Amino acid sequence: MNKGLMIVVDGGNGAGKGTCLRDIETYLNDLELEVVMTREPGGTAIGEKIREILLDKSAGEMCDVTELLLFAAARAQHVRQKIIPAINAGKVVVSDRFDSATVSFQHYARGLDLDLIKQLNDIAVAGLRPDFTIILDLDPALGLQRVASRGSDFDRLEKENLSFLERARQGYIDQAQADPQHFATVDASQSFEQVRHEVLQLVEQVISRHKQVSHE
Amino acid sequence: MNKGLMIVVDGGNGAGKGTCLRDIETYLNDLELEVVMTREPGGTAIGEKIREILLDKSAGEMCDVTELLLFAAARAQHVRQKIIPAINAGKVVVSDRFDSATVSFQHYARGLDLDLIKQLNDIAVAGLRPDFTIILDLDPALGLQRVASRGSDFDRLEKENLSFLERARQGYIDQAQADPQHFATVDASQSFEQVRHEVLQLVEQVISRHKQVSHE
Ligand SMILES: Nc1ncnc2c1ncn2[C@@H]1O[C@H](COP(=O)(O)OP(=O)(O)OP(=O)(O)O)[C@@H](O)[C@H]1O
Ligand SMILES: Nc1ncnc2c1ncn2[C@@H]1O[C@H](COP(=O)(O)OP(=O)(O)OP(=O)(O)O)[C@@H](O)[C@H]1O
Ligand SMILES: [Mg+2]
Ligand SMILES: [Mg+2]
Repeated sequence: MNKGLMIVVDGGNGAGKGTCLRDIETYLNDLELEVVMTREPGGTAIGEKIREILLDKSAGEMCDVTELLLFAAARAQHVRQKIIPAINAGKVVVSDRFDSATVSFQHYARGLDLDLIKQLNDIAVAGLRPDFTIILDLDPALGLQRVASRGSDFDRLEKENLSFLERARQGYIDQAQADPQHFATVDASQSFEQVRHEVLQLVEQVISRHKQVSHE
Repeated sequence: MNKGLMIVVDGGNGAGKGTCLRDIETYLNDLELEVVMTREPGGTAIGEKIREILLDKSAGEMCDVTELLLFAAARAQHVRQKIIPAINAGKVVVSDRFDSATVSFQHYARGLDLDLIKQLNDIAVAGLRPDFTIILDLDPALGLQRVASRGSDFDRLEKENLSFLERARQGYIDQAQADPQHFATVDASQSFEQVRHEVLQLVEQVISRHKQVSHE
């Protein structure tokens, strides 16, 4: 493999992203690929500081546009400092969330203008697009139950109401349907085993498709 | 006075902005105007947290675009949470730096695309423009001497080299020349008294022009 690639795992809160990222990491390590596990917002020292501001429960008065610009700032740093260098070094980058989350949460759920979001995302990503995004699809009520049973406290975004989270879910479904070459949804209400099976099958396809392209 | 107004004091590091802001505050208080003193980046709780990230000396690896997006995020919050409500309440907002600093430092000095800067600024300011910006013009070598003699440590931006700061200075001069209705430069190498005199004269003009417009 010459150039690396980027896989994103995204979806609602508590859908099982973290669980499935661990499965992917093990799977790719077993293939002896060099893997970089990362997340958004965050993934760099500066990005993690921005993440703290974004998730701060006390920052209830944050304006929508401020939020959008902070996500873009974290992404700009993440792409330039970490993702692009890793891909250029032939590694497989696997990210917990990426631009699909901004479209779902800031546009579908929060109602911010899609053109503004795309404009900021274009500035942030410097031409980079994930090779594939796996969407874990789950009823948000179930997702919040999972988060609660995990024992986590709710952060600022999870404190949004259920219809907000339902709009975000629809955003993920729409994005996946609009671009089946780069997206697939997995029914995250299934058992751990079944979710893992479907997710790893998708990862396998992405890797083998990438190998074919690299060898052409 | 029905609607308030916004005055910005800007210029190179150590030019005397803080000194002159204190003079303006006293002057406006004596006129019994309601005054809101603020600064960029910062001015709100969220903005001050963003400021910490921006000025962090250890964050040497921050990308230019990340920096620009963080300034825009702080400004978006500042404008919506603090400046616009104050102006609508008839107050005089006086800010230590604003958009002119982004143009000077990020475009003239750092070389970032001016269209990108304007695009982000337009997103941040929600249509707001300062009524007047006073530029304190000073040789940056002198400005850094002043900062050093004040006993302050150099922050991340002040650690940039002198030609960087000279390009920023030219940026201020160009902006002022291009829009004399909204900008004036004051020679900050003059004595405290002379600088104060010229600055307060400008403030007086802005206030009386504003009164006339409000009474029309
Ligand atoms: N398929 C599944 N069936 C049942 N429970 C699951 C399943 N997948 C994950 N969980 C559990 O749900 C909880 C949330 O999972 P996880 O932390 O992986 O989700 P997440 O999408 O990363 O959540 P967050 O949005 O908070 O980051 C965990 O306790 C996890 O063990
Ligand atoms: N006209 C002047 N002549 C001589 N010294 C001055 C003059 N104006 C300000 N100073 C001194 O220069 C130092 C820097 O001034 P000040 O802090 O007001 O500048 P500043 O533009 O706010 O700096 P910074 O960019 O670091 O915020 C202070 O010690 C101040 O007393
Ligand atoms: Mg998680
Ligand atoms: Mg100062």
